[in-house]
Amino acid sequence: MCADGGSLVSLGLVPAGPVSFLDGVPLVDHHCHSVVAGDLDRPAFEALLTEGTGPAPGLSAFDSRLGFSVRRWCSPVLGLPPHAPAADYVARRAELGAEAVSRAMLRAAGSGALLVDHGFDAGGLLDLDALSAVAGAPVGEVVRLEAVAEEVADAGVDAGGFGTAVADEVARRTDAARRPLPVACKTVLAYRAGLDVDPHRPEPAEVAAAASAWLPRRARDREPLRDPVLLRHGLWAGLDTGLPLQLHSGFGDPDEDLHRADPALLVGLARLVEPLGVPLMLLHTYPYHRQAAWMAQVFSCVHADVSLAVPYVGSRAPEVIAEVLELAPFGKVLYASDAYGLPELHLLAALRFRAALGGLLEHACSTDEISPADAERVATMIARDNALRVYPRMPA
Amino acid sequence: MCADGGSLVSLGLVPAGPVSFLDGVPLVDHHCHSVVAGDLDRPAFEALLTEGTGPAPGLSAFDSRLGFSVRRWCSPVLGLPPHAPAADYVARRAELGAEAVSRAMLRAAGSGALLVDHGFDAGGLLDLDALSAVAGAPVGEVVRLEAVAEEVADAGVDAGGFGTAVADEVARRTDAARRPLPVACKTVLAYRAGLDVDPHRPEPAEVAAAASAWLPRRARDREPLRDPVLLRHGLWAGLDTGLPLQLHSGFGDPDEDLHRADPALLVGLARLVEPLGVPLMLLHTYPYHRQAAWMAQVFSCVHADVSLAVPYVGSRAPEVIAEVLELAPFGKVLYASDAYGLPELHLLAALRFRAALGGLLEHACSTDEISPADAERVATMIARDNALRVYPRMPA
Amino acid sequence: MCADGGSLVSLGLVPAGPVSFLDGVPLVDHHCHSVVAGDLDRPAFEALLTEGTGPAPGLSAFDSRLGFSVRRWCSPVLGLPPHAPAADYVARRAELGAEAVSRAMLRAAGSGALLVDHGFDAGGLLDLDALSAVAGAPVGEVVRLEAVAEEVADAGVDAGGFGTAVADEVARRTDAARRPLPVACKTVLAYRAGLDVDPHRPEPAEVAAAASAWLPRRARDREPLRDPVLLRHGLWAGLDTGLPLQLHSGFGDPDEDLHRADPALLVGLARLVEPLGVPLMLLHTYPYHRQAAWMAQVFSCVHADVSLAVPYVGSRAPEVIAEVLELAPFGKVLYASDAYGLPELHLLAALRFRAALGGLLEHACSTDEISPADAERVATMIARDNALRVYPRMPA
Repeated sequence: MCADGGSLVSLGLVPAGPVSFLDGVPLVDHHCHSVVAGDLDRPAFEALLTEGTGPAPGLSAFDSRLGFSVRRWCSPVLGLPPHAPAADYVARRAELGAEAVSRAMLRAAGSGALLVDHGFDAGGLLDLDALSAVAGAPVGEVVRLEAVAEEVADAGVDAGGFGTAVADEVARRTDAARRPLPVACKTVLAYRAGLDVDPHRPEPAEVAAAASAWLPRRARDREPLRDPVLLRHGLWAGLDTGLPLQLHSGFGDPDEDLHRADPALLVGLARLVEPLGVPLMLLHTYPYHRQAAWMAQVFSCVHADVSLAVPYVGSRAPEVIAEVLELAPFGKVLYASDAYGLPELHLLAALRFRAALGGLLEHACSTDEISPADAERVATMIARDNALRVYPRMPA
Repeated sequence: MCADGGSLVSLGLVPAGPVSFLDGVPLVDHHCHSVVAGDLDRPAFEALLTEGTGPAPGLSAFDSRLGFSVRRWCSPVLGLPPHAPAADYVARRAELGAEAVSRAMLRAAGSGALLVDHGFDAGGLLDLDALSAVAGAPVGEVVRLEAVAEEVADAGVDAGGFGTAVADEVARRTDAARRPLPVACKTVLAYRAGLDVDPHRPEPAEVAAAASAWLPRRARDREPLRDPVLLRHGLWAGLDTGLPLQLHSGFGDPDEDLHRADPALLVGLARLVEPLGVPLMLLHTYPYHRQAAWMAQVFSCVHADVSLAVPYVGSRAPEVIAEVLELAPFGKVLYASDAYGLPELHLLAALRFRAALGGLLEHACSTDEISPADAERVATMIARDNALRVYPRMPA
Repeated sequence: MCADGGSLVSLGLVPAGPVSFLDGVPLVDHHCHSVVAGDLDRPAFEALLTEGTGPAPGLSAFDSRLGFSVRRWCSPVLGLPPHAPAADYVARRAELGAEAVSRAMLRAAGSGALLVDHGFDAGGLLDLDALSAVAGAPVGEVVRLEAVAEEVADAGVDAGGFGTAVADEVARRTDAARRPLPVACKTVLAYRAGLDVDPHRPEPAEVAAAASAWLPRRARDREPLRDPVLLRHGLWAGLDTGLPLQLHSGFGDPDEDLHRADPALLVGLARLVEPLGVPLMLLHTYPYHRQAAWMAQVFSCVHADVSLAVPYVGSRAPEVIAEVLELAPFGKVLYASDAYGLPELHLLAALRFRAALGGLLEHACSTDEISPADAERVATMIARDNALRVYPRMPA
């Protein structure tokens, strides 16, 4: 763990008051991705400012809460005035170069550790060692189970051996001796089949039968893994490692049926996992974050974040964070950015999170709902300490 | 287009500050209905103040956010003091007569153009020319697909010819030479079968088979069109016109299963329509407006409003509008009133919308989240310019 | 009815301003449970501070909005300073004894009448006469239909006679001559099968067939009643009494599938009940309270509360109450605590409700959205008068 948490205030990026409880606390970003290695022209930059495939024809992705946040809060990091025009921003970015921009943004974010899912469209991204060097923070790896299963398929395996091969490869990828340090598994079941599948571990014969149907299609068409039986097999292989299991839920890109990504659909899985003691980490969760908060209250094993929403909703972050904290115990909510590609997203997530949670706690103190000592403790729990407690491994 | 946008402030109906960004901007009301032509006694007036069939026994529909808004904000338009008792309000309305009341309310609303669905229970309503004259604004027509299909059935057609007859009639009703100008199609699939139907265009043989089952029941019992195959056929006939397709979603009257009107259920249709470039307009959307906002972010073709909710939720409009703008790009949100029957609804929608969006933008300026120039541009986009861009035809 | 409504202010527990509209108004708590009779050690106390089975290992249930509310608002009632440490709080509670604590909390809550569901895990709770004595308020009984059906089964009945036996016993339990006075029936269909079941009354032959399957399992394993046919039979037996039917909806304990407790799923039942004139009372409803509010607007028979959420969400209660009042008519929303076990929950529900609704109405007055006379009337409707109108029987 290393710390750079005071930088937002010292840069004058946020007013000192509202973030005082979080000032100097290095965040653990328990779920994010790496950043683009090369320079980005305007269309490429805008394509990373939306969960869609890009802005609609005739529109700019800068015309959104996220885009306005970039112009307001990231411009000063690049030496531009607040609210710099989009063209100026992209030009200045190119002038400084991707590495300098990433370094400035990631260090201003002040994360003490990054837990990174590097299994999604990682072609043009910095590798994890490079990301760690640029961010000035240690990096752990989140093993994406569907990517492992597809790699096992692509390496060549027969249907009867597929189940064991996946389990073995998941175990190998999560070995404590590997570097970057594997810290968690992750499933994108929500994208691939929806969270409303039977949550039970499938029988080996079911796995073999499903593999015999999918493997030839994979070999022929590179068909992604969408079979529910094989997805469940991978998920349980992840649970067998004992590491926390991260689950995509809530909003994301247009591949998903949003209503089938409601984390409340995981209630059956939570009942099965509860006696095992393996932490389930509900990622993103918005706009179903109140449902996720209920899950975090009633199941010991369930934890939640509102990661991706925080940078996207901009100045509405206090409301979203307040909503998840209505029912979620303070020991069950974690910080994450879910930033992908743009280091601006890492910075905006951290900046909004610090200001929002800090502001909520300041307000609670000012109305005497909470004592300052408790406020400080809650801030630190959510920003860092819950992650340190839940994740048995943390990169150093 | 004609403008009357400054009238609310000049009437002293709203404080000058919060609406300054929208002051003088004529709204495009991209989805509304006409107003009742005749005078209304108190039960008839109250029946139009709720989406139910009327207030519960022993209760008054005035005892709601909407009812209080009428007494507060519409009373002064009729020369009564704010918060006039309901009985005084209804009496004053009768004294002035329906036409004078409608003229005063609609002109105070300050809409520059009205896009009107006149296919629902339009018996006692002003026709569109009369509405235009009273409102002092040009009117375009939104063609209600289910009404067209039912009229085709009632005119007499055999099952084998039904599909073609519907498509032909939709094409005829949307001809650019017609007046009032057809500007869009609309489906109430949400009411009739739910949005969770297969979104694909049905085959002609399927349409004929479904028609052969429904047409006799229609002839005998005037059974409304609820068959999913025929509804989908109508929807695709609408898409074939290339005009924007409006889709009812979110709350409405008790005919619908609300949970089957969640706009997220349209994700499959959006994927099919995305390559076609036909705009999908998600109407109302509340309480699923955050889901609609995600659809608007990730699909180029999807746009959203929170129309009907705005007059109903009263002083909560800023919160609802802020919620839809969490994820929806600023180029994808439109103004609408969805007002039906009472011109008070047209006025309250406009008044609340101006005050709410104007207030949100003022606040964003005062906290330096957005520059005044950007705030003005965003206000104008949502109030008018997005509609002018999305709708290829606009009445003049 | 008896009144103790001024006590919160006179105790200095809440500032005088925001609750002035509700000051002195005795609440009708239309749905709650009894309190634990004996003393509680810390684990037992914490287990009642969550809807889960207890806090997660290593965490304290005090680290939640509810826990902080107890320390802030209940400590002074026990003579401790605000924000007393959890250990001090539990120790002081033991020192005073359960009865003194319950008396202080329940009287501070200022409820004029309590309608109590005593059919759930009532072993260690005060009986209703004792509760009434401690609370200083009359108590009515809410008859839990599933408990009645299970008792009928356990008393021994054959499958063919089960349906009639249940109906007879429900009629007997709801006889107006019984004491405590039966005031309503309640179903926990949401927990047992989900609200998405066919809402129709089952035929006697269906009931007999379902009973013949369940009764042997009940006799052997004490299997809870989860059969949808038998649950519907019980629900309709409750409707046949003509008393209001309370329905659990929204969040609760981990037995339920939250997404199947969405009150919008009751739309089919509401259509069947609407012509009967029997009130349907949607309990809790959070996080689906906006959906419940729509139900309350469009169906005469439907009413709603946000009971359980109010103490749990703490200082967020104004937001939750504002959300349910967006669409729900003021005559359709009721106060309830859903408190179970801890008298702190009775107090916190009342305190938060008074402060939240009072504050919302003060704000509406200060912005001239509502007149003070209307604000006072609305406050009294929701706090008390709606319950007095809807419930044909009220304990005195």
